[in-house]
Amino acid sequence: MKLTLQELADLTGGKIVRSGAISEFAGMGALDEAEQLDVSFLGNEKYHQDYLETEAGVVLIPLGIASGACPCDSVALVEVENPSLAFAQVVKHFVTTTRDFIPGVAVGAIVADDATLDISKVCIKAGAIVESGAVIGDGSEVGAGSVVGAGVQVGKDCLIHANATIREQCILGDRVILQPGCVIGSDGYGYELIDGKHVKVDQVGIVVLENDVEIGANTTIDRARFGKTVIGEGSKIDNLVQIAHNVRIGKHCLVVAQSGMAGSSTLGNYVTLAAQAGVGGHIKIHDRAVLTAQTGALKDLKGDMVYKGMPARPLREEQKKLAHIARLPKLAQEVKNLRARLDQLESGQSSE
Amino acid sequence: MKLTLQELADLTGGKIVRSGAISEFAGMGALDEAEQLDVSFLGNEKYHQDYLETEAGVVLIPLGIASGACPCDSVALVEVENPSLAFAQVVKHFVTTTRDFIPGVAVGAIVADDATLDISKVCIKAGAIVESGAVIGDGSEVGAGSVVGAGVQVGKDCLIHANATIREQCILGDRVILQPGCVIGSDGYGYELIDGKHVKVDQVGIVVLENDVEIGANTTIDRARFGKTVIGEGSKIDNLVQIAHNVRIGKHCLVVAQSGMAGSSTLGNYVTLAAQAGVGGHIKIHDRAVLTAQTGALKDLKGDMVYKGMPARPLREEQKKLAHIARLPKLAQEVKNLRARLDQLESGQSSE
Amino acid sequence: MKLTLQELADLTGGKIVRSGAISEFAGMGALDEAEQLDVSFLGNEKYHQDYLETEAGVVLIPLGIASGACPCDSVALVEVENPSLAFAQVVKHFVTTTRDFIPGVAVGAIVADDATLDISKVCIKAGAIVESGAVIGDGSEVGAGSVVGAGVQVGKDCLIHANATIREQCILGDRVILQPGCVIGSDGYGYELIDGKHVKVDQVGIVVLENDVEIGANTTIDRARFGKTVIGEGSKIDNLVQIAHNVRIGKHCLVVAQSGMAGSSTLGNYVTLAAQAGVGGHIKIHDRAVLTAQTGALKDLKGDMVYKGMPARPLREEQKKLAHIARLPKLAQEVKNLRARLDQLESGQSSE
Repeated sequence: MKLTLQELADLTGGKIVRSGAISEFAGMGALDEAEQLDVSFLGNEKYHQDYLETEAGVVLIPLGIASGACPCDSVALVEVENPSLAFAQVVKHFVTTTRDFIPGVAVGAIVADDATLDISKVCIKAGAIVESGAVIGDGSEVGAGSVVGAGVQVGKDCLIHANATIREQCILGDRVILQPGCVIGSDGYGYELIDGKHVKVDQVGIVVLENDVEIGANTTIDRARFGKTVIGEGSKIDNLVQIAHNVRIGKHCLVVAQSGMAGSSTLGNYVTLAAQAGVGGHIKIHDRAVLTAQTGALKDLKGDMVYKGMPARPLREEQKKLAHIARLPKLAQEVKNLRARLDQLESGQSSE
Repeated sequence: MKLTLQELADLTGGKIVRSGAISEFAGMGALDEAEQLDVSFLGNEKYHQDYLETEAGVVLIPLGIASGACPCDSVALVEVENPSLAFAQVVKHFVTTTRDFIPGVAVGAIVADDATLDISKVCIKAGAIVESGAVIGDGSEVGAGSVVGAGVQVGKDCLIHANATIREQCILGDRVILQPGCVIGSDGYGYELIDGKHVKVDQVGIVVLENDVEIGANTTIDRARFGKTVIGEGSKIDNLVQIAHNVRIGKHCLVVAQSGMAGSSTLGNYVTLAAQAGVGGHIKIHDRAVLTAQTGALKDLKGDMVYKGMPARPLREEQKKLAHIARLPKLAQEVKNLRARLDQLESGQSSE
Repeated sequence: MKLTLQELADLTGGKIVRSGAISEFAGMGALDEAEQLDVSFLGNEKYHQDYLETEAGVVLIPLGIASGACPCDSVALVEVENPSLAFAQVVKHFVTTTRDFIPGVAVGAIVADDATLDISKVCIKAGAIVESGAVIGDGSEVGAGSVVGAGVQVGKDCLIHANATIREQCILGDRVILQPGCVIGSDGYGYELIDGKHVKVDQVGIVVLENDVEIGANTTIDRARFGKTVIGEGSKIDNLVQIAHNVRIGKHCLVVAQSGMAGSSTLGNYVTLAAQAGVGGHIKIHDRAVLTAQTGALKDLKGDMVYKGMPARPLREEQKKLAHIARLPKLAQEVKNLRARLDQLESGQSSE
């Protein structure tokens, strides 16, 4: 399990810039917490001071900084292209994630007689419920307390954590991960006001999560009014996100915590919604657009741009706007000065 | 199950504007997805281009547009007052929502001996828990993994989806719907700072959901400190909404996803909170007020108006404010010009 | 159970300002709902009108208001330092919160053979799951449908409400309260973009909730990428809050509903995040800082100050900014006036 400096360089594809006091490493830690036997990394310029003061045995550093200020000589340095990524290899080395995939249906799980699954190849944990007609692909796990609704299809090698809910008929591709407590296929929010009452509009569609999608804890994804709500291949949704009915998210999007998408809105591919952002109903956000935190999109947004503000505007425009607002006190003072000067001029004139 | 053009007109109360290539329809779809045998509808002006290019067999259209540009001749057109509402009838026709209400207590459900329910008239699904003293009305269903706490009263014909939690003593009226994962009756957030520690204030009240209320997935509704938190008859709460202790929501309100109401705030009747809106503690929002998305109400708001911004202001005032901000660069330039002209004038004077 | 006026004064440490029509009280209620036999309290200036019109038998009032306008003579008044706190004593008197701590493992609960707990001293309710290697301290309760993951350590006298999830290896101190549906230890949101795909970065750390922490309903707290996400002693987290991986929250903080903290952000001690606030990644908020509702912190913030706005600024600066914006129409008019006067002056000059 231990790692020599050379093994570390090999593992991370890095280059040893200098050796330190220790030749074999046994663990890992953040710069400000690591000890002599630990590997650490500098993944963010914000932590430069921690880097200089670290007591780690070795630090994975980005290219081009070894020539600048460095921690004391006892700390070895290994240069890598992407320290965060390189460190992920170190984590994999030291921590064998013991996912306890024990095939079979645990005591206390309830699986419908007409569900389709190979009990030698799936793991249904205690307290999980698999309802009538559901299909669970090989290599998939259903966590404790999770509910796989009637007719749901779960692909291969999926990991459904505890207390997640997948309502009837929804479809999960392969290698989908559901964090605990998320809800897939709740009714869309649709009512018609008739005689002063909000009458529920049937929500008869489904949710489709394509291959390699991950859904965060307690996130909610509503089924379509009819047809499908779709999360495209490889897209990753964070915690406490709201995805309304008939939303379509393209491939490889990132939707960060507490953001929300209203009904029938769509994201292209590689779109990023940062935390607490919102997208209005029927709005399209095109490929590779980025909405920064707390941004609210109220109309369609072109791709390949960064947006900010409520309503969302291109980042540079919004920053200019904010700069103008910041200069307002100065502008008001200036106007006051001009008025005084005008007063003077006018009084001069009238006295002529 | 198939539907002729005349049957469609009858079903939706519509008028056949023109026939198309197909006389019998077998399914339904959105304008851009529908095929020759499908019924579709134009429910939002945003989709006009999809309407013109649709390959649906027939489209339900609003009054007054048939005289304008239309899709190709093979597409039949039926004029209706409210296409979305009319389409809901079509959905009902084609999709028999097979809610599997199977009376009885499923294997793997746990019902306390002293709970009150008629097992021939309720549906308690596998993994559901009904605790001591709870009452479940006839026609009500408790979904898999849901917990009905001690002494809870559930009315008639309620539908409690999977993994919902109703804590002790709370009361649900008739025809209440709880989407998966919602929490009814969690403790209100109340502490008193005593000797540097936040000491919990007992939260001994309950939550009352009146008749025909619907609560969205993973929404949380806190029990009152004492007395009741109330969601009034017919009000509909979307997903991931936070309702704090002692809130009172009137009748037929709409509270959209990710909005939140702080302690003791109240809504009148027919109030709308759009997505990600917030209402401060002890604030009253009066009848038929509308808070647009991401709006934050920090003081009481009169009814029958639309509000926007943080802090919330009448929509028109807020729009004017935004227009003034948008003109700031121009204003700054103008002030610069005035100064230059004044400089010139003054130098002319001083040289006289 | 009844309470005389003198007993009420003794219980709350208050002073009888005047007697009313009733000498013994049997219940309690808010000012606008209380009846003759009820105790009420004036906890917030906003309710002064309700106070004047109350029909309560006795009101707990703050110091210094008895000399002003008062409710009618039948209402007794007791002066106390903190009416809300005093009223909490009254609530405790009238409502014996019947927490049904029945030691043992209920039918329908599943406890792993190698879990460590004393069944005579813990309460594992029906439908709860305790996985392999978990430890449950004496006096702790695990609610219906809750999942205590493999190797989790739960301290003494904890109260885990229904349908909560604690993922593997996480650690809870003593007297921790988890409201229903919260998720402790979900994976942090970390991916590296490799060949156009977001590849999951292993999240092998844990969550530590120190003593006397409370976590709100459906709140999510991600496990650290490596190391720990920490919620410090006595901190109270409200509902639907997102705490990302490697966040560190100090002692006695208040994090109100729907606020969120991005990865590796930290709070000092006694920090308050009001509702729907956000803190960006790697940001530090220092001791006793207060972020008002919907505020967004994008850089480190000094302690002992109140912040507002997006981006967050000291409250007074932000208020000045808002005041300047509010005066914009006036400023624009002023500039127009100046221009007109300049036009006149110039035309006077040119005509000379």
